[in-house]
Amino acid sequence: MTHINVGVIGASGYTGLELVKMLVKHPNFKLTYLANSEGETTADELHPSLKGVCDLEVQKASVTQASNECELVFLALPHKTAMAYVKPLIANGVKVVDLSADYRLPLYTYEAFYTEHTDVANLEHSVYGLPELFRQELKSAKLVANPGCFPTSAILGLLPFMKYRVEHTPIIVDAKTGVSGAGKKLSETTHFVNVNDNLFAYNPLMHRHAPEIADKLGVDFEEVNFVPHLVPLTRGMISSIYIQVEGDFDEEAVLEEYYKDAPHVRISKVPTTMKDVAGTNFCDIYAKRKGNMLFISSAIDNLMRGASSQAIVNANIMMGLAEDAGIPDIAYVP
Amino acid sequence: MTHINVGVIGASGYTGLELVKMLVKHPNFKLTYLANSEGETTADELHPSLKGVCDLEVQKASVTQASNECELVFLALPHKTAMAYVKPLIANGVKVVDLSADYRLPLYTYEAFYTEHTDVANLEHSVYGLPELFRQELKSAKLVANPGCFPTSAILGLLPFMKYRVEHTPIIVDAKTGVSGAGKKLSETTHFVNVNDNLFAYNPLMHRHAPEIADKLGVDFEEVNFVPHLVPLTRGMISSIYIQVEGDFDEEAVLEEYYKDAPHVRISKVPTTMKDVAGTNFCDIYAKRKGNMLFISSAIDNLMRGASSQAIVNANIMMGLAEDAGIPDIAYVP
Amino acid sequence: MTHINVGVIGASGYTGLELVKMLVKHPNFKLTYLANSEGETTADELHPSLKGVCDLEVQKASVTQASNECELVFLALPHKTAMAYVKPLIANGVKVVDLSADYRLPLYTYEAFYTEHTDVANLEHSVYGLPELFRQELKSAKLVANPGCFPTSAILGLLPFMKYRVEHTPIIVDAKTGVSGAGKKLSETTHFVNVNDNLFAYNPLMHRHAPEIADKLGVDFEEVNFVPHLVPLTRGMISSIYIQVEGDFDEEAVLEEYYKDAPHVRISKVPTTMKDVAGTNFCDIYAKRKGNMLFISSAIDNLMRGASSQAIVNANIMMGLAEDAGIPDIAYVP
Amino acid sequence: MTHINVGVIGASGYTGLELVKMLVKHPNFKLTYLANSEGETTADELHPSLKGVCDLEVQKASVTQASNECELVFLALPHKTAMAYVKPLIANGVKVVDLSADYRLPLYTYEAFYTEHTDVANLEHSVYGLPELFRQELKSAKLVANPGCFPTSAILGLLPFMKYRVEHTPIIVDAKTGVSGAGKKLSETTHFVNVNDNLFAYNPLMHRHAPEIADKLGVDFEEVNFVPHLVPLTRGMISSIYIQVEGDFDEEAVLEEYYKDAPHVRISKVPTTMKDVAGTNFCDIYAKRKGNMLFISSAIDNLMRGASSQAIVNANIMMGLAEDAGIPDIAYVP
Repeated sequence: MTHINVGVIGASGYTGLELVKMLVKHPNFKLTYLANSEGETTADELHPSLKGVCDLEVQKASVTQASNECELVFLALPHKTAMAYVKPLIANGVKVVDLSADYRLPLYTYEAFYTEHTDVANLEHSVYGLPELFRQELKSAKLVANPGCFPTSAILGLLPFMKYRVEHTPIIVDAKTGVSGAGKKLSETTHFVNVNDNLFAYNPLMHRHAPEIADKLGVDFEEVNFVPHLVPLTRGMISSIYIQVEGDFDEEAVLEEYYKDAPHVRISKVPTTMKDVAGTNFCDIYAKRKGNMLFISSAIDNLMRGASSQAIVNANIMMGLAEDAGIPDIAYVP
Repeated sequence: MTHINVGVIGASGYTGLELVKMLVKHPNFKLTYLANSEGETTADELHPSLKGVCDLEVQKASVTQASNECELVFLALPHKTAMAYVKPLIANGVKVVDLSADYRLPLYTYEAFYTEHTDVANLEHSVYGLPELFRQELKSAKLVANPGCFPTSAILGLLPFMKYRVEHTPIIVDAKTGVSGAGKKLSETTHFVNVNDNLFAYNPLMHRHAPEIADKLGVDFEEVNFVPHLVPLTRGMISSIYIQVEGDFDEEAVLEEYYKDAPHVRISKVPTTMKDVAGTNFCDIYAKRKGNMLFISSAIDNLMRGASSQAIVNANIMMGLAEDAGIPDIAYVP
Repeated sequence: MTHINVGVIGASGYTGLELVKMLVKHPNFKLTYLANSEGETTADELHPSLKGVCDLEVQKASVTQASNECELVFLALPHKTAMAYVKPLIANGVKVVDLSADYRLPLYTYEAFYTEHTDVANLEHSVYGLPELFRQELKSAKLVANPGCFPTSAILGLLPFMKYRVEHTPIIVDAKTGVSGAGKKLSETTHFVNVNDNLFAYNPLMHRHAPEIADKLGVDFEEVNFVPHLVPLTRGMISSIYIQVEGDFDEEAVLEEYYKDAPHVRISKVPTTMKDVAGTNFCDIYAKRKGNMLFISSAIDNLMRGASSQAIVNANIMMGLAEDAGIPDIAYVP
Repeated sequence: MTHINVGVIGASGYTGLELVKMLVKHPNFKLTYLANSEGETTADELHPSLKGVCDLEVQKASVTQASNECELVFLALPHKTAMAYVKPLIANGVKVVDLSADYRLPLYTYEAFYTEHTDVANLEHSVYGLPELFRQELKSAKLVANPGCFPTSAILGLLPFMKYRVEHTPIIVDAKTGVSGAGKKLSETTHFVNVNDNLFAYNPLMHRHAPEIADKLGVDFEEVNFVPHLVPLTRGMISSIYIQVEGDFDEEAVLEEYYKDAPHVRISKVPTTMKDVAGTNFCDIYAKRKGNMLFISSAIDNLMRGASSQAIVNANIMMGLAEDAGIPDIAYVP
């Protein structure tokens, strides 16, 4: 079988590492181009755990070289930096899965919460890479905006129940994330002593993932109340969601029906746990109703379903491959 | 100065240990009686960290002996076991601070959520030991029902804002607790491997602390939506609270005004963190409003303000002592 | 390609789970038989993280059934229980990889440190499953005694340097292990509160893995000084080893030469870290000399190289397969 | 009773915080001067956990001001920075407890392992602040060099057994420390993701605390083999020590006799644990012999006995106060 050549720009961070880990084992993709902002190193020098697994050279990022060597490129870059690569890559006919926020939002919303957008043309044609919502559109997409981690867990938990929601009542998403979500950057927030034995909310009601959740659910931003919390563990994310519902339904049956064709969503009979999804692309969802209040617990691995494995699922779909090709389903348990 | 003789029944658990740690340093109380269900040991044999600090004999629990040796007794026992001690102790004229759930709820609610109550007479005269709510009543109380940990954090967070709440809208308390809240008992839930790198909700919308929160706030049980989560750390608890509000107010000003005379509540300008209260009786509270949604973060040490140090504050008030006598205010930071 | 049918007896524990996780993805083995002491469940009921991955029925363990359905059986059972299965399985012509201690030691040593041995005949023909020592013998083995986790890390670290060791000087192995090494059993030692923020040695100088280390290195038991410590993390093990050496050598060159044909040993230029081997069969080794003292740091995943993945490597060799067939090499990093 | 005015220069770090926590509760010292390199803040702004406890102004460090306001000053500064303060403070007649390495070693050794020494005169008169070794000299000391954390735990463990040690055989100290030992500085080593679920040795056989251990024990530096390891927890330190011994003795009896007058050393019958000393000035020691090998486990809180509480004990002795005045003995357990 012939392989499809793919590249990763942004090899240094956690999501870059996760991409490499999957791509070197992928049955259909061949990782032929790996780059970061400096180059002059190798995959296993950057990430010692890859020793004996991948010693691919890491290049200084170049659009030309990426375009010559790859049919599809994954961008694991900060927002704003990403769009500077997307524009020429797309112009060169390279398909792109962008893991940044640059192509996830309508222009107006993006500029209100992030920065000026310099690639509006592509923004209009990008597809939001949540397969459960846009599987059809992804098949012909040239540019995929890979969803944020919080929105992935929140939206997947909410979607099946939106038709039972009492309109205009608040949607509350109390999210908990492991520290890898903060990236490799050194900061007070990632110092071990400040995280261990600790827990705290940050950016309450003001986090930039709130408009992304609202936009994809088709509700007003004011209705989404999103508060993330930092938890002393490395990977994983749980969104605890509260909405007011009406009508008769069985929580589990609604979930089973909605996700009956989704290979990467699992319905739980007990509240979801982070560990059961760590290292996989699964989103585990549990729901429980009391009166007109519905509690939903939605768990993902923030680096996988919340970033890199979802990116590869998207690439699989874009390339006409099996949706789960090369996607790990064995969790880091125990 | 003369000391007041006090005792602790239930010396083996975490809250028993915390009581001992404070009582051996207390300026006015003298710990003269320490008991558990078996006796025949000493404080430092039960709790090796007390070596060189307290080698008091641990007795097999006896109401007679406790009544002879103490003016006031702390009960750190499971519910149901506690009431069997309260009845005769009160009859013997001993004052009691009961850390169990036995005297926290109206009879009907107690029996619906716990078990049959066999000491209704005392139940009717017990005072709920949240000083910020019942300081006056505590001064003459003979029996104090020490609040649950979750209700302490939730109620203290909610009280100042109840007058701004839109009536009959849901009160959502998404709580996170360290593992010491589950006690010393061995269970799947406290096995290190099941907790480390993990996080999950338990008893969602059905936990027995929900009616306690509702009762003390004077709202209907159906309006309180309470979901606790277990977090991989030892001590500490944060309630993330969401309510719908109306009217004009400044969040911080409301908190400062409400708690201007409360020595053990601190108002935070940033979201509260568990570590800043660990080892102390402080409740740290932060609030942030967006439109008509109010987010409140209320942090306590579950074993201290959520149990043992609050119990000693209650005893201080019952005995006419300074409210903060013997109460630690130096947090376990870093 | 035809598959080789294999079974696992002992499906409930951590090592049983790890076996299942690898066997369901193995290119040559087919997991046809899965058993524990009770049966009447499925793989994903026992281990919820396997939902959507493996719903194989878990049987009540039966030698007859295992013999009928499998060419090779993995035993993930406690010592003493294991030998009761080994005897009849071997008699039935089934190959066995035993993860217990039952066939690791000479009779005299086994009975001194464990219990009476009831299968001496097979004990004499078992092969110790450390491929780096006994690759040749494993090829024709019918019964493999899978090494203990501590001995695996200690022996692999020591082997290359034994010829430089000053004879009869002490071998010191100060080992650190994650909590999964203690198994799923509930005990004081595995209660989260006792492990988190804590660290302690246990069975110092008296642990049963010391004679196993001594036997395989061919030194007197008295010369091996082994002290394990419990560390607050889930998986991983590092042996910090100290020996007195003589002669001229370059530490790294000795390691590179000794392990030049070992696919699952990696030589480190910096002290080894647990995370870089978590989830893999790698043993990472680092050495540093100062005068006549040599420090060696040897890191493995206690459940993988220390148990289950090494078991599958052994089975691969026994069956004439590629040594690394189905063996994960992608670490749980970050 | 009159108070003794004391100051702390170096208020920002963990040891500075620990000093403040003890000094605000000290029965005889009054904290009148608090400084760091920038000033213009308060104690509770620097350390939010101090809110409601200490709002003392933090000054920009000034020798003149410190000399005017204090009889004794604690320096919680990096080495080299410290000596620049010591010289003028001593010249001004102020007593100093220096928590840095600047006055711990003989000149030659200091300059070999650290940097040029610019205050040799005071170096010659400084007293090494390990009360169990130099209690007598401390009484009249003007300048105390507070010991390093690793040396404190190693030396206290070794001292009682040095007379049984086989001369010139290796002393092995395999130490494990929590992350607070690395200080507040941001670095790869303190990033949560690199520490959590991880463990590794650093500076093996080459750490600067090795010569300090050798010097105070009076043995050759070459005989001390010291390897520290970083453990995923915040505070605490255990030295696992291995020496070769001869002669008949009972391990526990030796310890009990040697430390019979030491209020801050506890002898353990089981291997010591970090948690039992966290938050206190205790050093817990356990010893176990097998043949001529002696294993010693010595546990301290690295920030307390390993730094700040030992500093205050030293100040107590210098000022003729009770040795344990203001010294916490209640551990952070659970």
